[in-house]
Amino acid sequence: MIGKTSEEINIGDEGNFSKTISESDVYMFAGITGDFNPVHINSEFAQATVFGKRIAHGILSVGFISNVLGTQLPGPGAIYLRQECKFLKPVYIGDTITATVKVTRKEEGKNRVWLRTFCTNQKHEIVLDGEALMMPRKEG
Amino acid sequence: MIGKTSEEINIGDEGNFSKTISESDVYMFAGITGDFNPVHINSEFAQATVFGKRIAHGILSVGFISNVLGTQLPGPGAIYLRQECKFLKPVYIGDTITATVKVTRKEEGKNRVWLRTFCTNQKHEIVLDGEALMMPRKEG
Amino acid sequence: MIGKTSEEINIGDEGNFSKTISESDVYMFAGITGDFNPVHINSEFAQATVFGKRIAHGILSVGFISNVLGTQLPGPGAIYLRQECKFLKPVYIGDTITATVKVTRKEEGKNRVWLRTFCTNQKHEIVLDGEALMMPRKEG
Amino acid sequence: MIGKTSEEINIGDEGNFSKTISESDVYMFAGITGDFNPVHINSEFAQATVFGKRIAHGILSVGFISNVLGTQLPGPGAIYLRQECKFLKPVYIGDTITATVKVTRKEEGKNRVWLRTFCTNQKHEIVLDGEALMMPRKEG
Repeated sequence: MIGKTSEEINIGDEGNFSKTISESDVYMFAGITGDFNPVHINSEFAQATVFGKRIAHGILSVGFISNVLGTQLPGPGAIYLRQECKFLKPVYIGDTITATVKVTRKEEGKNRVWLRTFCTNQKHEIVLDGEALMMPRKEG
Repeated sequence: MIGKTSEEINIGDEGNFSKTISESDVYMFAGITGDFNPVHINSEFAQATVFGKRIAHGILSVGFISNVLGTQLPGPGAIYLRQECKFLKPVYIGDTITATVKVTRKEEGKNRVWLRTFCTNQKHEIVLDGEALMMPRKEG
Repeated sequence: MIGKTSEEINIGDEGNFSKTISESDVYMFAGITGDFNPVHINSEFAQATVFGKRIAHGILSVGFISNVLGTQLPGPGAIYLRQECKFLKPVYIGDTITATVKVTRKEEGKNRVWLRTFCTNQKHEIVLDGEALMMPRKEG
Repeated sequence: MIGKTSEEINIGDEGNFSKTISESDVYMFAGITGDFNPVHINSEFAQATVFGKRIAHGILSVGFISNVLGTQLPGPGAIYLRQECKFLKPVYIGDTITATVKVTRKEEGKNRVWLRTFCTNQKHEIVLDGEALMMPRKEG
């Protein structure tokens, strides 16, 4: 339950997390955030869109990124400073999403670590791509 | 249940959503995303951090932004292309968060709308600040 | 797991159910129904109302009535035909609500049972009062 | 986040909300209210009933009515005084329900508004019909 310090992190280090998105994940996410956009919770509406069926909230997949950053790399004790992401493809209920974070840069002396953060689906398509900036826990 | 088109959106247009963050919001968000970072769900751990007590997931507040973008401005039918955010202050269980989105720029001819997206707490402190890029629904 | 028939029900029969309303009950009820009326989920807003703090959804208490009708009296196999209720007092998070149903009338030959349905809080104040019409399961 | 006053409401005004009912909605509603009537959460039992499969709680659809009353018409600040409803047809898991409220009468001088409140499914069948009495927020 203790995260890595900047010194313990190397460029190229990776962490990931995978989950099949359930209907209840999407409905509970709507219920927590109030995001009742009908494309997520109305199958009649969703059918008439370019997506053809209900899609998961994009930010739900970003939650998987936050999971990996907060529990693995850097892990507990780190402070989340910044997240940027592009939503590239829809995520459907039933898709299995893998969130990956990969260290791309360290700002020496400033205790800052940059990571590429992306999600893929079960067809290995990148559905979300972006970057995070973390402040790892300090020594001691 | 129908969102605005690019033509119906003006620079300066705003939407917002407010909610008091409950312990169950944070716990259910952890349960959906798997983000069991102890700073969110372990009060003993959180007490020993700079935050002093359990904080909400930063991405939960981004979910409130997604709510406003998806249900109000531009609203249903829009496609979420990009989100960038900086986490500026911790959000505690019990804080009342207001997510605001405000149109800053339109790319004419490309059906793209940029919005400043930020969250404030009950003390009117900005806890999260960023930018979203949306593709509003097309006419007809 | 089998309800009563009309013949097995007598005028004056009663059933009840009690539960302390938690914050998570109210938040999950909002999340399921989409009822994000700020008086339920925004403590800043609620403070400025006549109620002074967040209140539970009135319909949540009606759900306790439905519980007693569907699981006790008449119980499984009955069909819920009609519900009428007046909301008399606010229900706060932390209140202990008892839902009571009491048979007031039987329509002989039509397999219909009328019940007074009401909820009280821990101070024995009636917070909700009304009437339900049920069609109990048939013999066999 | 501010509802309409009686003066701002006209006879014939409408609001609505739509959602596809998920299995998790029904299960969470059962979990909150304790309404574990087997027709809602036991598919073996439900199969042997006239409904043929698990149905949603009638009161869940009334929750959608409460959503529209509390967030749209009259909206925040209104007080919910009374609800009457008849359950006309079963609602199944997977049905897309639209709750509609429509102003039918105003009691001038008493700050009371009556609304017809009904729910339809994706086949445009009325599944629930009734009436609500609201006290809209007062001016200022």
